[in-house]
Amino acid sequence: MASHFRQESEEAPLVVERLFRENRGEVEGLAAFLRRRPPALVLTVARGSSDHAALFAKYLLEARLLWPTLSFAPSVLTLYRARPRLPHPALLLAFSQSGESPDVVEAVRAFREAGVLTVALVNREDSPLAQAAEVLLPLHAGEEKAVAASKSFLAMLAAFLQLLAHLLEEGRLREALPLLPEALFRALGVEGSLEYLEDAEGLFALGRGFAYPLALEAALKLKEVAALHAEGLSLAEFLHGPQALLEEGFPVLALVQKDEAFEGALSALEGLKAKGAHLLVLSAEPDALALAHSPLKVPLALPPELNPLLLAQAFYPLAEALARARGQDPDRPRHLSKVTRTR
Amino acid sequence: MASHFRQESEEAPLVVERLFRENRGEVEGLAAFLRRRPPALVLTVARGSSDHAALFAKYLLEARLLWPTLSFAPSVLTLYRARPRLPHPALLLAFSQSGESPDVVEAVRAFREAGVLTVALVNREDSPLAQAAEVLLPLHAGEEKAVAASKSFLAMLAAFLQLLAHLLEEGRLREALPLLPEALFRALGVEGSLEYLEDAEGLFALGRGFAYPLALEAALKLKEVAALHAEGLSLAEFLHGPQALLEEGFPVLALVQKDEAFEGALSALEGLKAKGAHLLVLSAEPDALALAHSPLKVPLALPPELNPLLLAQAFYPLAEALARARGQDPDRPRHLSKVTRTR
Repeated sequence: MASHFRQESEEAPLVVERLFRENRGEVEGLAAFLRRRPPALVLTVARGSSDHAALFAKYLLEARLLWPTLSFAPSVLTLYRARPRLPHPALLLAFSQSGESPDVVEAVRAFREAGVLTVALVNREDSPLAQAAEVLLPLHAGEEKAVAASKSFLAMLAAFLQLLAHLLEEGRLREALPLLPEALFRALGVEGSLEYLEDAEGLFALGRGFAYPLALEAALKLKEVAALHAEGLSLAEFLHGPQALLEEGFPVLALVQKDEAFEGALSALEGLKAKGAHLLVLSAEPDALALAHSPLKVPLALPPELNPLLLAQAFYPLAEALARARGQDPDRPRHLSKVTRTR
Repeated sequence: MASHFRQESEEAPLVVERLFRENRGEVEGLAAFLRRRPPALVLTVARGSSDHAALFAKYLLEARLLWPTLSFAPSVLTLYRARPRLPHPALLLAFSQSGESPDVVEAVRAFREAGVLTVALVNREDSPLAQAAEVLLPLHAGEEKAVAASKSFLAMLAAFLQLLAHLLEEGRLREALPLLPEALFRALGVEGSLEYLEDAEGLFALGRGFAYPLALEAALKLKEVAALHAEGLSLAEFLHGPQALLEEGFPVLALVQKDEAFEGALSALEGLKAKGAHLLVLSAEPDALALAHSPLKVPLALPPELNPLLLAQAFYPLAEALARARGQDPDRPRHLSKVTRTR
């Protein structure tokens, strides 16, 4: 029987299609407001997988809209009882599947009270987070039973991208958006396997730029479903220290896409290969796949803002197969429950 | 013969004393200016260990001064050619030992050109970074031969804290500052050992709040000098997923200090212990040490803003001994050189 994790990841294309349709009116209204009154600073608040979605949003907001974006650590508020003084107007984006994390909810309440426009991208529409935020962008992912998020994670990225597309002057991203559901469906037909990792003790998952948050997400998924100590790092940070761990055959999973980070990523990967790393490369690009010991071929590519979603979608079935090969139940990570409450 | 890493880490107390003396005039002037004209937003730019110092600065700036602080990813500028529009006035803090990282230098130049006040905390006073920034706070650490930073890392934290102390209205931190060099010296007399990790394949280093950046730093040091796959995480994030990797005896290194995060950290560690983790606890606090399978007793504690430096100082000799026990040369991490250039 297919795992919930597998089934739910395969629902993602339909979820994204529904989300684009259902949220369109709300997103157009929010985008029109924000274009008239652009924020001086954007804050993100999130935990776990959702924080990887928030980091993805940060890269795109800064690179494409030039809106500075700050990842807010809830402990500043919940433990140290400090609410930083923000420039006006400010925008807060909170990302969550369950909408139950007390520290995320508390941060949204506090900043809303301080006059910050608060937007929640959340799957559970009846959750405390959905109620705390001024604007709600529901993820429309339906119930997610697997502890390891898949469809809700992709829905977060998609919900954010729909907003971004309506915030950008140029229509390039707005025109590309409708291609996403079909492309996600095709990405499930990824070629290759993670069998090299069946007995691995550790791994680094690397990405640069827009693909970096997805490397963090792939690493977390490998921890959760396959009990593999995978650490996600930016390719640049990896070169600044952690590569000291490389020895002959040490596995490195690289997420590579064709954008401004592409050429640099290729030459960095050549360097890691020369140092003995076993390269697993998840990409649609022949030049990147040609470097791999284990190529993981994504069937197609989209523009760089949308493409990271294809990398995640292609990765889920690979992670599920690896989990089973390692004797793990992908639906039952040890010690975890669907909702984690931290303050 | 003692390694450079060990020798240089033992120089840190004297480095910090010299730094406090030499930088005092410049820091007082800068603090007076910033108090009259507080930034609407602070940016940090850094790589590797230096980025852990930058994260430490972010927590303290937000929690104690209420200045929102954004960690800037150089790739937004160097790869995607975007310079986010910052609220005015803005302040940029760049942290670096060598001052040579092209992406850090490029970010400082670009934001300085845009009217941002740029401050470099850098060890090499003749470096491109020192020349690019408007204000220079030298680290006075002298030459650092070991690839793994120790004295220069502590000097960064100390240089920042001296600035913070002069920015705060209340004199509490200013009065405590002179205690730091002597306390650092005493912290070298840490009791306990990391021998449990001699054959370990992986480890999580955890901290919360002000101690979290130090957990990242401890993990990086274990990678660099002891070739141990140690991953640093905030204790809260660890509960949100990575704890799925815990099995009987899995080592978890917790850095714990007495501040607003203390009680929560204790109960979280009890939970991890119940799940089979082997707890190594680096702390001066009896309640925290009592939870440990491997207590690592720091001889004394300072106020919570200064205490993280004692945790790092106490950790260096432990890491060095572990490196040797694992057959590694602490001065020669594989594949690394002192200066890493990324764009």
